[in-house]
Amino acid sequence: MDNSLKEWDRIIIGIDPGTNVMGYAIVGIKGKKPAMIAMGVIELSKFESHYLRLRRIYERVLGLVEQYLPDEMAIEAPFFGKNVQSMLKLGRAQGVAMAAALSRDIPITEYEPRKIKMAITGNGAASKEQVKEMLRRTLNIPDESLLPQLDATDALGAAMCHFYESSKPAVAHGASSWKSFIASHPDRVKM
Amino acid sequence: MDNSLKEWDRIIIGIDPGTNVMGYAIVGIKGKKPAMIAMGVIELSKFESHYLRLRRIYERVLGLVEQYLPDEMAIEAPFFGKNVQSMLKLGRAQGVAMAAALSRDIPITEYEPRKIKMAITGNGAASKEQVKEMLRRTLNIPDESLLPQLDATDALGAAMCHFYESSKPAVAHGASSWKSFIASHPDRVKM
Repeated sequence: MDNSLKEWDRIIIGIDPGTNVMGYAIVGIKGKKPAMIAMGVIELSKFESHYLRLRRIYERVLGLVEQYLPDEMAIEAPFFGKNVQSMLKLGRAQGVAMAAALSRDIPITEYEPRKIKMAITGNGAASKEQVKEMLRRTLNIPDESLLPQLDATDALGAAMCHFYESSKPAVAHGASSWKSFIASHPDRVKM
Repeated sequence: MDNSLKEWDRIIIGIDPGTNVMGYAIVGIKGKKPAMIAMGVIELSKFESHYLRLRRIYERVLGLVEQYLPDEMAIEAPFFGKNVQSMLKLGRAQGVAMAAALSRDIPITEYEPRKIKMAITGNGAASKEQVKEMLRRTLNIPDESLLPQLDATDALGAAMCHFYESSKPAVAHGASSWKSFIASHPDRVKM
């Protein structure tokens, strides 16, 4: 295990599976503060065969899981698509990525794109650029070139959405007012 | 490795992935003769969570791969389905089953149901019962109770279809006539 990973209380891997490009992001949480550890894209279009693409996804996600030892996986998962053929292919890409997590007992949570946009920007219909800019500010990424690819941004959005959702105060504690939300999420309101 | 597996020249695992039930079949080839080594179904409907089902598929297929050490995997794969939602779920089930094969470098070939029916019975529109009966006779399975579940029969059909397809004489050898087909497939014509 990489010693630098020990400083994090929790590590979330975000995945945006696609059949041409797959994005990933690793987010570390220390106390209540998230930070981006790594992000990138896996180019799949160079592989002609559908199987080589699936294999590449499986191997790379398994490699990331072994390298960063994430505690949880968050996946951006649209539930409706253009046609049955593309949804079957998308399902396969998601399936092999999930298998890499399942093989290491990592729990998976999936989020619809609209839910991710809502969690990051407060607007479920936000543009990809708005999501990117909000993530850049929240995570204090100074150089915009560190968020180069929109596909990796979607993966980062999925990981951050999972961080927000899993950090929500339990309803039983009655933290449903805006006041209590501010009290329990000082970091989010500050910026 | 189970010593009894050494008698086979090739072992094919057939998979019929579904989200409620997944069928599997292990076919051993000795010379030009196929035999059914094992078959069964993995019940998934008892698991409420979609993730538990995917995990079960992954673990069971990986277990079968490790137990029988197949050289190839054949999957029954419909390319068109009812709706995008069900195709996404089917794709995921296929994906995790494929990941188990990909993780062990096992090549995967997929066959449409019509292609499988055609390879087994000569009729792409054959009923499931006809396919089952033909498989029972071809593989000399005396007791019909050994082919209890239609889902496992589909998996056996996929494995046998792959056996026929991969045993076809190369086109370059000019074996395109019925006469040469009989000459090179005496086992199939006999019954």
